[in-house]
Amino acid sequence: MDNPYVLSHVVPTRKDYISTTDFDQVEMLDMVKLSRAIRSYIKAGGTLETLYHKNLAMIFEQKSTRTRVSFEVGMEQLGGHALNLAPGAIQLGGHETIGDTAMVVSRMCDIIMARVDRHESIIKLAAQSSVPVINGMSDYNHPTQELGDIITIFDHLPEGKPWNQVKVVFVGDCTQVCASLMMITTKMGMNFVQYGPPSKWLSDDYLQIGRANTQTYGGSVYVTDNPERIQGADFVYTDVWYGLYDKETPKEVYMREFYPKYQVNAELMALTGNPNAKFMHCLPANRNEEVTDEILDGPNSIAWDQAENRLTAQRGLLAYFGGVAEATLDKIKRQEEE
Amino acid sequence: MDNPYVLSHVVPTRKDYISTTDFDQVEMLDMVKLSRAIRSYIKAGGTLETLYHKNLAMIFEQKSTRTRVSFEVGMEQLGGHALNLAPGAIQLGGHETIGDTAMVVSRMCDIIMARVDRHESIIKLAAQSSVPVINGMSDYNHPTQELGDIITIFDHLPEGKPWNQVKVVFVGDCTQVCASLMMITTKMGMNFVQYGPPSKWLSDDYLQIGRANTQTYGGSVYVTDNPERIQGADFVYTDVWYGLYDKETPKEVYMREFYPKYQVNAELMALTGNPNAKFMHCLPANRNEEVTDEILDGPNSIAWDQAENRLTAQRGLLAYFGGVAEATLDKIKRQEEE
Amino acid sequence: MDNPYVLSHVVPTRKDYISTTDFDQVEMLDMVKLSRAIRSYIKAGGTLETLYHKNLAMIFEQKSTRTRVSFEVGMEQLGGHALNLAPGAIQLGGHETIGDTAMVVSRMCDIIMARVDRHESIIKLAAQSSVPVINGMSDYNHPTQELGDIITIFDHLPEGKPWNQVKVVFVGDCTQVCASLMMITTKMGMNFVQYGPPSKWLSDDYLQIGRANTQTYGGSVYVTDNPERIQGADFVYTDVWYGLYDKETPKEVYMREFYPKYQVNAELMALTGNPNAKFMHCLPANRNEEVTDEILDGPNSIAWDQAENRLTAQRGLLAYFGGVAEATLDKIKRQEEE
Repeated sequence: MDNPYVLSHVVPTRKDYISTTDFDQVEMLDMVKLSRAIRSYIKAGGTLETLYHKNLAMIFEQKSTRTRVSFEVGMEQLGGHALNLAPGAIQLGGHETIGDTAMVVSRMCDIIMARVDRHESIIKLAAQSSVPVINGMSDYNHPTQELGDIITIFDHLPEGKPWNQVKVVFVGDCTQVCASLMMITTKMGMNFVQYGPPSKWLSDDYLQIGRANTQTYGGSVYVTDNPERIQGADFVYTDVWYGLYDKETPKEVYMREFYPKYQVNAELMALTGNPNAKFMHCLPANRNEEVTDEILDGPNSIAWDQAENRLTAQRGLLAYFGGVAEATLDKIKRQEEE
Repeated sequence: MDNPYVLSHVVPTRKDYISTTDFDQVEMLDMVKLSRAIRSYIKAGGTLETLYHKNLAMIFEQKSTRTRVSFEVGMEQLGGHALNLAPGAIQLGGHETIGDTAMVVSRMCDIIMARVDRHESIIKLAAQSSVPVINGMSDYNHPTQELGDIITIFDHLPEGKPWNQVKVVFVGDCTQVCASLMMITTKMGMNFVQYGPPSKWLSDDYLQIGRANTQTYGGSVYVTDNPERIQGADFVYTDVWYGLYDKETPKEVYMREFYPKYQVNAELMALTGNPNAKFMHCLPANRNEEVTDEILDGPNSIAWDQAENRLTAQRGLLAYFGGVAEATLDKIKRQEEE
Repeated sequence: MDNPYVLSHVVPTRKDYISTTDFDQVEMLDMVKLSRAIRSYIKAGGTLETLYHKNLAMIFEQKSTRTRVSFEVGMEQLGGHALNLAPGAIQLGGHETIGDTAMVVSRMCDIIMARVDRHESIIKLAAQSSVPVINGMSDYNHPTQELGDIITIFDHLPEGKPWNQVKVVFVGDCTQVCASLMMITTKMGMNFVQYGPPSKWLSDDYLQIGRANTQTYGGSVYVTDNPERIQGADFVYTDVWYGLYDKETPKEVYMREFYPKYQVNAELMALTGNPNAKFMHCLPANRNEEVTDEILDGPNSIAWDQAENRLTAQRGLLAYFGGVAEATLDKIKRQEEE
């Protein structure tokens, strides 16, 4: 991550951003660099038009706040436009297959972002689309969240600690956000722990990806219900307990499984032994269930920076997969040299 | 309102536009001036970009036509972009508190406009938001309607009559639009009457605001079921009878309460004794219930000008609370001098 | 269609685009020319801003993919903005008449496009609107589809055949798309056949329009259940069998009526006797009901070009009815001469 204006791959090696498993560490660092360079530039008052007259189709099979707002604003800040194809607003899934929708939309738009019920839908969409497809969350993973999260971790690295020695503990349910955090942290050679009840541990399919990463990049990956494993955490991350999609769990069931042992509160944070350990949450939060107000609103919470970095990440992804990484960095550099 | 290019407060004294009770007459007149200056300029073919690359989040807990269209077009005409976060489209109220949504959205957007079910929601939203919040109607008031309405009244002042001697009669139910009209007309020192059945009179809480205004600015405020009080009205205003939000009333109930005495028809208009009395309606109208076609479509109806002034007001509010009042007026002045 | 930069009518003879029956062949060819000129220019990398700061209100009483995306992208590519007023998102049809909505929206926006349940709604909307209204499909017709389809036919004319000798066969149900195809092909003096079960033939009201066209422009119009009439077709077109709007038919009913005789498959295509006959579909398709995958995905399918030409047509219509036909062609010409 030395020079933010030099990427190893200015042209993406894949048309689509479906899973970070399709990209190696160098490529992921390219996306991080590009995202951060755009952020600095815009925060300093710079304006960009590199996606001028480009249109992003946002297809949502699920409700969304952060993904929706960050993609629409991100596109606008790069000079382009985003179309919100909300759940139920288009024919998709009703009278039209996802493949046919993909072929039609990619004849009219320049990039597609989709939040889908089933991961196989985003794969079909990408296969049939002639334009880049970005996965805005499926039941398998949440790769745009991954990029925003790893940027947030880089922004808040413990002083003096090399980034590949960082320890990240995810507390609670093996949601797709938990899986995604595991995938990106191990890709960066970091140490990842999921701390939760055994019935809610990441499946072997996911863990194999993490273990393969540790062999290539170093670091470690564990699932555990042993609170001692929290020791030394630099980042403690949690997500809601109620499940997502059609798997939504009744409150009495999930409270019995997770509460109070897996609630992130002052006691749990103390188990890190690290007074500077940061708290992260992908949001939305069920306050005083998986996390107490004290922690979410406390001085070590970086959950709101993390939310803002959804926008940081989306701009980077749009520029990268939209084919204007180089043009964008050139524009930034030129302006800064003036 | 002398020189439209000189505002008393170029920087708003409050971050948010939640209620006109937060602002004094001078500040309200600033908003009127700014709105009208922008209107003249755009009608003459001028273009503005003072909110270029600024994003407005429009949060709707209720359906909307006028508020939605006027804010989205207003933002676009100032060079910015508006995001439509429709009812049910985001997590708000489902899995996320309004405060958390506010914190997230204000990390990504530059201004927030919200139409909410409960007034306390807009107050919480503003408290948690780091960016300006505009109240797009609650169950308590409708301050963007107030600004549009007072502009419409200024546009159609009776010839030769000083604006603080104008008489405005609201006929019918004490909706939030009725309350808002009372608040803005008394703030301007005008004479306000609500003519309706006693069970539907403005509550004392509202009337105290009006009475305090008359002490500061002159004018008067009455609620009455006496038709003689309509005498001398310059403006007759009505709103639907069916109630709003969860209070929607069955037709036979509201017809019994309001019909025929409180229907605005030729007979009622004649009670003004003023052949030039103008008819106003915030719309949508239930034709031939609270107002007859004859009046709504008649030569004295200014309801459509009033609808257009929703846009006039929104542009003014966006420029004012968006922090570009001065820049916008400068641009207008410079262009006009060329 | 000689010189694409010379239109017979630069200013439309009608404010609104409700039905192609309101325009003669020359006017329709003007819209074709303008649409194709804009397409060539944009495909070559040109940018247009002729609808800069103009706002299109898109009113949908029905779900839409192609119409929605093509109008929103089309508007954006001409430098303007489109507002998506989705089903249920505005007051229309609930608490407000379509005429009142028209009057309000046309005070704030520059063009209106509406997809309506009933054709009389679009007629009322246009009558009350002070700005141009474009019919985005009703239960009677689909004129924006007509323009896209006739452009697609011109793009794929059989080599050496004059366009007024082309034969177009519609297979299946007399949907509004079938009716629209009949109206535009006969207006161009082409030969049109609807091949379907007698109970699903175009009504006499529609056929009278077609017959009047053949008297003015030549060509022919037939409805038939005789497969021999498919012979010589240059274009075979179909649409779904399930009906639209509230007329949606149970599957066992429509399958009994149409299957297998009226399915477009290799056998039916062979009846044309023309190995180059093209296949068209307005989409969405019910794959392997009205058309087999083999044909829809086959080498003679131009259904995806046809989908893309929805965008081609919308840009042309927006420029034409938005009053910037001349300005747009001037810009294109100037840029090309540089």
